[in-house]
Amino acid sequence: MKPRLALVLGDPSGIGPELVAKLLSDPEVISRAEILLIGDQPVFEMGQKIAGASIPVQVVSDIAQARFDQGRPVFLALSTIDPAEIVLGQASAASGRAALESLKVALRLAREGRVGGICYASLNKHNLHLAGMSLASELDFFSQELGHRGPAGEVNVLGRLWTTRVTSHVPLGRVPALLTVPSVLAAIDLAHHTLIAAGFERPRVAVVGLNPHAGESGDCGREEIEVIGPAVERARAQGIEAEGPFAADTVFLRARDGLFDAVVTMYHDQGQIAMKLLGFEKGVTVAGGLEVPITTPAHGTAFDLAGQGRAEVSALREAFFLACRMIETRARLGAPE
Amino acid sequence: MKPRLALVLGDPSGIGPELVAKLLSDPEVISRAEILLIGDQPVFEMGQKIAGASIPVQVVSDIAQARFDQGRPVFLALSTIDPAEIVLGQASAASGRAALESLKVALRLAREGRVGGICYASLNKHNLHLAGMSLASELDFFSQELGHRGPAGEVNVLGRLWTTRVTSHVPLGRVPALLTVPSVLAAIDLAHHTLIAAGFERPRVAVVGLNPHAGESGDCGREEIEVIGPAVERARAQGIEAEGPFAADTVFLRARDGLFDAVVTMYHDQGQIAMKLLGFEKGVTVAGGLEVPITTPAHGTAFDLAGQGRAEVSALREAFFLACRMIETRARLGAPE
Repeated sequence: MKPRLALVLGDPSGIGPELVAKLLSDPEVISRAEILLIGDQPVFEMGQKIAGASIPVQVVSDIAQARFDQGRPVFLALSTIDPAEIVLGQASAASGRAALESLKVALRLAREGRVGGICYASLNKHNLHLAGMSLASELDFFSQELGHRGPAGEVNVLGRLWTTRVTSHVPLGRVPALLTVPSVLAAIDLAHHTLIAAGFERPRVAVVGLNPHAGESGDCGREEIEVIGPAVERARAQGIEAEGPFAADTVFLRARDGLFDAVVTMYHDQGQIAMKLLGFEKGVTVAGGLEVPITTPAHGTAFDLAGQGRAEVSALREAFFLACRMIETRARLGAPE
Repeated sequence: MKPRLALVLGDPSGIGPELVAKLLSDPEVISRAEILLIGDQPVFEMGQKIAGASIPVQVVSDIAQARFDQGRPVFLALSTIDPAEIVLGQASAASGRAALESLKVALRLAREGRVGGICYASLNKHNLHLAGMSLASELDFFSQELGHRGPAGEVNVLGRLWTTRVTSHVPLGRVPALLTVPSVLAAIDLAHHTLIAAGFERPRVAVVGLNPHAGESGDCGREEIEVIGPAVERARAQGIEAEGPFAADTVFLRARDGLFDAVVTMYHDQGQIAMKLLGFEKGVTVAGGLEVPITTPAHGTAFDLAGQGRAEVSALREAFFLACRMIETRARLGAPE
């Protein structure tokens, strides 16, 4: 049985619709899953035109009409934006609203069990805020729409390497105070469980130190000894294959060489400097900790590229196949506790 | 006229002597400079044996006897260690003392103008301390031996990309308080002047922010607005082609693509994560800010590899050619002010 996933067009004024059209031009993609495409028909037509593609789909206005056994995507046609309001490459509340409404439909269908997971083309945070989203991030929006109560966190994936972080968009000076045994443990836990959800049997999780050379045994900072080390011990006591804390400047070399599956970082740039150098163009973001697999390319709406047909589909492709794999794993293992 | 440089064997118990033998097996190296090799004969013999090389040299006990016009290195033979005391791959005060004494000779000759610069194979900081060096770093030792009074700082070089940093081996939590307009300006200045000393005419210097996304216009930290930005402005007012502050996670992609010659980072791992991923095996460290060009491979003594003949010479090779280039530039431009 193939995984069934919702594929959402994303922000209409960015490169999302073009990338979805490129993605669906690939027979390997079409045959991999039962695809429920969600968005507005004029937006997808625009995307196909930009991509120079023509994708056969079954258009429906209600998922009850869907026939997934025809070997083509089912297009759940919405009406979230007046096509005249779309200006490629420009920020607008209308685009933000359209992206949010399409995602809401996908999240409702996931909550009802009508799709097993979601892959969405890029959103634009500025547009979402123009559209009135008051939550800080997409992840909060997903939690709200799914009625999720536990912790959730962004997981970055690049090929075989996964990362989570203990702190995210906070000034660097505030990072040390935010590192506690529970907060570090939560990021280790998020990495472990998201990898389990992606089909890893025993994920090997490396935990990074905060200070140069992981503190040089206390000579250059004490967080490794007082906080990070104890959190690693706690994780190991829970059966997680966690190791560390390791020096930040060499751990990514070892992870790149396959010695670890995941790296847990202490702050934003510690992971992002490495991930972007290792090949940002294929990066995927997973909304970790939720009951439903949700993936998206790590790149943004790339307004400067919108409408040119030159946008690179590889990250969306990675996000699509990862969502499929996570849906299958969930079917095999059951939903996470 | 060829540059004349001192080539120092480094710590006898590490991979240094082997690497020097490998370096001098290369005819391009021999013909590039007038090379004054400095160290103990038994140590160099050991290095040649491990490398499987036999290097013709003119052995002298006094530099006055040197004949640099013979197309082979001149070996200034010292007696800094009893060969029986050398244990490959093991820490010892004797090895540290030998390394320090050889370097002292090189520094004296540089100070007297008998050589134009120094390239040395790796030292072992632990051995230097065992040998009684009380200074925190090699750089302080060089400053002391050269009678240098102004600021000096480590500069990391990887291919065409150079980095300096405002703070180094300090706990991350102390970094924000150490960023001041003068400290940031000093690191920009060090980058600029070291690149000038290496022959760049108008080095393009990128300055990195401290916080995620370079502070997001103040939403995520204020150091960019209050300290780093003003330091960049100050540098520009002095005629330095400095730009920034840039987000740490994308600036290295742009530098890698050739948009900048140098990146000034705010803390140790910000630069080191990137440099090690970009190709640590070719990394060179320059003792920046001194009157004399001094270079060394960025790697260490690699005790785990010592004696096996498998050590990789490329970083020492880069360090050697860079020292040659800096000596020539200095001859052309005169000594730095």
